[in-house]
Parts: sequence; structure tokens; C-alpha cells
Amino acid sequence: MKSSSEKKKVEVCSSPLLFDLYDSSDSIVVVIDVLRATSSICVAFEHGAEKIIPVAGVEETRAYKEKGFVIAAERDGEKLDGFDLGNSPFGFMGDTVKGKSIAISTTNGTQAIHVAGKSKQVVIGSFLNLDVLCEWLVRQESNVLCLCSGWKNRFNLEDTLLAGAIVQRLKNSDAYHSHCDSAIAAEHLYQLAKKDLFGFLENSSHRRRLKKLHIERDIEYCLTPNQAPVIPVLQGGVLVKLIEVFS
Amino acid sequence: MKSSSEKKKVEVCSSPLLFDLYDSSDSIVVVIDVLRATSSICVAFEHGAEKIIPVAGVEETRAYKEKGFVIAAERDGEKLDGFDLGNSPFGFMGDTVKGKSIAISTTNGTQAIHVAGKSKQVVIGSFLNLDVLCEWLVRQESNVLCLCSGWKNRFNLEDTLLAGAIVQRLKNSDAYHSHCDSAIAAEHLYQLAKKDLFGFLENSSHRRRLKKLHIERDIEYCLTPNQAPVIPVLQGGVLVKLIEVFS
Repeated sequence: MKSSSEKKKVEVCSSPLLFDLYDSSDSIVVVIDVLRATSSICVAFEHGAEKIIPVAGVEETRAYKEKGFVIAAERDGEKLDGFDLGNSPFGFMGDTVKGKSIAISTTNGTQAIHVAGKSKQVVIGSFLNLDVLCEWLVRQESNVLCLCSGWKNRFNLEDTLLAGAIVQRLKNSDAYHSHCDSAIAAEHLYQLAKKDLFGFLENSSHRRRLKKLHIERDIEYCLTPNQAPVIPVLQGGVLVKLIEVFS
Repeated sequence: MKSSSEKKKVEVCSSPLLFDLYDSSDSIVVVIDVLRATSSICVAFEHGAEKIIPVAGVEETRAYKEKGFVIAAERDGEKLDGFDLGNSPFGFMGDTVKGKSIAISTTNGTQAIHVAGKSKQVVIGSFLNLDVLCEWLVRQESNVLCLCSGWKNRFNLEDTLLAGAIVQRLKNSDAYHSHCDSAIAAEHLYQLAKKDLFGFLENSSHRRRLKKLHIERDIEYCLTPNQAPVIPVLQGGVLVKLIEVFS
């Protein structure tokens, strides 16, 4: 067992509005938007997307169409008119994305990626890449800050559960410790929920919101771990798939 | 059982920085700073304080001395030089406060009271006035928003636990419902912690911080429900003890 002072630190920030309270200059920031932006981004890379540009504004995203990009935009859970894709992970599969460049703008997730941009390194987290991401984090020499996108800057439950899953895995590795209250809370909540994530979220605000849109299938998929074992990483404002070279 | 649409709403805001995301114009805001500002404020009124002015700045607080006030100031857990009191609930007892006017400035709690000032009504919550506060809230016609002071605008665990206790009591009354993710999370955490709040907080950031100051006795006291059954309410920027008149 390592002593506390030898371990790296893992923290959780529950809203992009609180991000500046954390020192991320020496941290890897894991951006989380379980329903559904960061899940869909992982799916796209698993299905062979070449790069993904997270874009803040809708019109700015639309302009990428002329440059040959697949364009994706969602607001308040729904695909916007005139775009190739919305925010459903099932859209980001197969020939639609294989070898393609994608520009994407969503209500919460892409905003959070922009907020995180100033940190040492930004990677994308979802239940879909949970194990491969945590195994990679354990091998890095950096502290980790999980940034939950939330819903319009409010705390949300599903992002917190994934943060808790990451905290639990990193602490179990003996390489990380945490005295961050958000991380402690997230780990407790994940421990309560992990046997039935879908059931646990039954009354959550976002699941109620998405229920009206009949996308329960999306939610079940986004809560099922390890279906897209890739690590999307931000390089110069563009997400690419991390390829590790072991010599 | 009332239907959901007949019930009032209870929400939880986990940081003063997120307060503007909530519509509090029609809500009673319960300001929470368990360790220790809102606990000490309840104790002061239980011991006969006449009024308490929450003040943002230290020098501004000091100026109240000339006006005959008892002055209290704490930063980072410690009493500041030249003040009558810090932030320990044991200071706010007996003749020190009986019949007195107090001006107080603390790291987190008094700032949160100022942030909440624009809402319909502001009351002070702590474990020390938990039951009397919840019984009163149930009889009001307003939605409730619990505002956790946190630690320098970050999420903290002890304030969240009290928010969870309030959410649980209000929902159990059948007068309130909640679909706020922060409230759902807070209630789960309180349910986990309630048999041993002190033990649950063992690794929390604030308890670790205060441990260095040797004030474990303060913490145990602040976590023991219903020792100061009063309801401090903000009126024109001044906290007074709510006196209900039943005709």
C-alpha cells in the first residue's frame, strides 16, 4: 500500500460553472456527459471516426458541412433540423462515421469540453469506455479531475455516478487517493447505484426529460459499461482517438 | 396521498455560485452552513440573542463594535484577532449573547446568506433546528430551496447531508415532491449517513480541515439534531427569531 502522500489525487467537479475553483493546470480532466454527448463521442471513435470537433454554437457547427464534415447538433435532447445527426449513440455507428470528420454541438457536453480546454490534458469519459479509461489513467503521472457536464450547469445524477465509478476504480488501484467531498459523495452514490444504474436513475431529472422523447434504448445503452473501449483525447481543440505506443 | 402536481417543490443548490440557476423568487431559501455558521446562529437565538447581522467583510464587521454589537469573525476555521467571537457554537451561549445584537462574518455561511437575499424569504438551517424548521416549512405555501454554503463555493458533504435530511422530512410529510437531482443525491447520502453522521464525515474535507484546529467537540455538537429549536429568519438584511402567532 502506498502512503497518501505518494498517491495521485482524484477530484470531482459537479458543474462547469465550478471548474475555475479547481487547479487543473497539472491534471488530466475527464469530461463526462453520460446522456449522451460523451457516450456518442466514444461510440463514433469505436466505429472508426477520424476526428471530432466539439463546437459551442449551432450555426458554427452547420458551417462545417461545406468542409465535408458530418454535422451533429442537439438542444434540449432533440436533433436540430438540417443536421446529419443529433445526440443518439446509435447515430454514431457504421458507415455514417467510419473514416469521417464530425463537428458536434450539444446542450451540455461540448460546452464542458470547452471549459476544460485550459487544463493539462482533456479526455472523454463515459460508461462505454470506463475500464480502458481507468486503466490508462492509473498509468499516467497526473492528478485526475472528473468534470461533470450536468444539465445547463446544474448537478446531475448520471454524470455523478460515472464520476463515482472512476473514483472507485482509481482508488482501488492504490495509485490514487481523494479527500474531495464531491468525489466521496460520487463514490457513495455509485456504490448504491451500481447494481442497477437504470433503476437508480428512474426519478432523475434527465431521465424524466428524455422519457418524453422515447429514447429509453439510448439510456440503457449509455449505462452499459465497456461497449466502446477507446480513449478520445483533445489535441488542439480537436478530439482524436488516443493511440498508445509501447516500446 | 397528494398527487405530484398538488405538492410543493423542494430543491437543493450545492454551491452559492450555482444559486442563480434556480428561480428563488417564489421560494423559501434555507441557508445551510453546518460547520459552523448556521449552527452558531441557531445557538445564539436559542440563548436569547436579539438580532444578528450577517456581514460580508471583516473590517465592516469590526465597525459594528462601536455601535454596541458583539462582533464575530472567522476565516478558514479560526477566530480573527480583535473579535469577541469566532465561529464556535459554544461561544454563542449564555450572557455573551443574551439580549445582544451580533455582527458576524464567516468564510462561507454569511456569504451564502447574502447570495440568498434576493429570494422570497430566507431562513437559517442547521441540524440544531432541524425538526422545528421542517415542521414550519410544511405549513408554508412556498417551494423550498436548500442552499448549501459549501467550502469556498465548492460542494461539501456536511451541508449536503443536512439538505438531504430536510428533503427527506419534507417528502415524508406528503406536502413536497422533488425531481431535482441534487435533492435526490442529498437524500440518498443522508439515508446512508444518518445513523452515524460523525463517522460518515470522517474523511470529509472540512472535518479534516477542522481536525487540525482541535474542534471535534464543535463538530459533534453541530451534528446533533434539535438542540436549538428556533427559526432564524432574514428581515431587511437582519436575522431575527421567527415568532409565530396562531390566532
